[in-house]
Amino acid sequence: MKKIAVVGCTGAVGMTMLQLLEDTDYEVVCMASGRSAGKRLAVGRARHLIEPFSLEGCAACDIVFLCVSGAFALEYGERLAENSYVIDNSSAFRYHNDIPLLVPPINGQRYRGEKLVANPNCSSAIALMVLGPLHDAFGLQSVIISTYQAASGAGQPAMLELREKAKSFSDYGDRDDSEHFAHNLAFNVIPQVDSFEANGYTREEMKVVWELRKVLDEPALAISTTAVRVPTLRSHAESLSLRFNTPIQSLAQVRELLRNAPGVEVVDEPEYGAYPMPMTSTYKHAVEVGRIRYNLIYGEYGLDVFISGDQLLRGAALNAFEIMQLIKH
Amino acid sequence: MKKIAVVGCTGAVGMTMLQLLEDTDYEVVCMASGRSAGKRLAVGRARHLIEPFSLEGCAACDIVFLCVSGAFALEYGERLAENSYVIDNSSAFRYHNDIPLLVPPINGQRYRGEKLVANPNCSSAIALMVLGPLHDAFGLQSVIISTYQAASGAGQPAMLELREKAKSFSDYGDRDDSEHFAHNLAFNVIPQVDSFEANGYTREEMKVVWELRKVLDEPALAISTTAVRVPTLRSHAESLSLRFNTPIQSLAQVRELLRNAPGVEVVDEPEYGAYPMPMTSTYKHAVEVGRIRYNLIYGEYGLDVFISGDQLLRGAALNAFEIMQLIKH
Repeated sequence: MKKIAVVGCTGAVGMTMLQLLEDTDYEVVCMASGRSAGKRLAVGRARHLIEPFSLEGCAACDIVFLCVSGAFALEYGERLAENSYVIDNSSAFRYHNDIPLLVPPINGQRYRGEKLVANPNCSSAIALMVLGPLHDAFGLQSVIISTYQAASGAGQPAMLELREKAKSFSDYGDRDDSEHFAHNLAFNVIPQVDSFEANGYTREEMKVVWELRKVLDEPALAISTTAVRVPTLRSHAESLSLRFNTPIQSLAQVRELLRNAPGVEVVDEPEYGAYPMPMTSTYKHAVEVGRIRYNLIYGEYGLDVFISGDQLLRGAALNAFEIMQLIKH
Repeated sequence: MKKIAVVGCTGAVGMTMLQLLEDTDYEVVCMASGRSAGKRLAVGRARHLIEPFSLEGCAACDIVFLCVSGAFALEYGERLAENSYVIDNSSAFRYHNDIPLLVPPINGQRYRGEKLVANPNCSSAIALMVLGPLHDAFGLQSVIISTYQAASGAGQPAMLELREKAKSFSDYGDRDDSEHFAHNLAFNVIPQVDSFEANGYTREEMKVVWELRKVLDEPALAISTTAVRVPTLRSHAESLSLRFNTPIQSLAQVRELLRNAPGVEVVDEPEYGAYPMPMTSTYKHAVEVGRIRYNLIYGEYGLDVFISGDQLLRGAALNAFEIMQLIKH
């Protein structure tokens, strides 16, 4: 039996990880800041005692899952990795050449037993589940993504804020205040996730560029992204316009390929109202893909697809859980 | 003084037109189906008497604005145009070669006095306000659009449904019922607007393709679109990835160009949280444009921009009002 520390257990990602660990043979240690330490955390049938974070406590664990800030991860990540395997959910280590960034169904075979592993950004992980098999089959030449990102990316309190604001909404003339987003999100759309870089892109948008290239092992892949927060709760959706090196003979072939891809569910009977949506992909392990059609510009060399995946599962905790299983084997 | 009939005056677009006509020197005749006839309609300070639709009543008007179904427009449009100028808000006549499709600030100069004029689709009209001046300056080579479309496109009752459902929402497990959308829209995103065509695109998506080409007078312009309904009330947003024939020297030049474009407002100080949003563009006559940056794939030959515009104003009634003014002059 492996012993796992979940550091930052009271957040949305930490709680989702505890749900995934229930009914497994992992022994779980819950850790959080001093403020929460000593309290009990109810997840499923379990009531976990929250321990204060300590290097010693972590050293007694085989695996440490960090779902904390990048600053915290930077401070402790490498020290923790001297004694345990560390999976870091922040962006602190994702772009280091010698630290693997893993989406197990896509590039898990490249894992060589490194002690410190980075878990990807949510939008990246969700897109990669579909881009990976398509790239293998047809060779991606360029990727254009517009996202429809849920409140959960800003944490559990952000989801509550959105629900409360939607309930009490009277007009856009209401004060534009938000504790968790750049603006009020209820009945609004905000084209900002994370802070801005010098090139006019947000850090979230650049993370997708950097992470797709790293996970697909295509350092020069042409990618442009627009990351947008929309008033949904915990599933991200993404609109993808893809250009390939190899022509695609039929859409039936694409659907068959994706049906056989692990962690992907083809939901593509639009005439019956079946396509990916946050409403249907929430709490689902698989990423939904649908609206599969030839891109009108690239013809048989291009596809437009729409995807939706649970931000807390494939976008964070489930991906980390699969990394744990890689480490276990 | 011109006499204007607004046919379908009780709908969201008709009511918005009545608001625009207040304080103008147009004499307004409100018409609707028999069910509403005889009732009073309060708009601003006016209380209009609703008359039943009749060919004779319309014949007494200089201009007839049809904000009714495509079927109704097909049945009566050409007959009405024998006596009056007709502006049709449906898609019934938009793709006829001999019927002008006008976005006045973009192609109003091509108007030659035709009696029947088509008003564009909302997503097309909003995008064209920004695409027009950019095409003039740099020559569009290709356009990729993902939309974030508001409930108002499905009418006034659809907006009410969304607000009520957002208030009473408990979980996605609630019954997925909707009178106005393909699915529940509260806290959801629906990649379907209008019905599906044989090529896998929705009619809404193809309307944008056809209308951009017609209004820009570029019958072969390369365009691909994804139209998505999001839980906002009356402003559409759109993410545009644009490729040009001419390189763009600086983004300052683009901002200056768009600042001088009629009906466009540059909202592009992202570091201060200023970018286009439904919250800020609602009730605004101008289309907001921001997040102006070089597309990461096309370099100086490409731009990514984000826009937001009021679906009932620029997307419908305001555009028709500007067509009325063309006819008047």
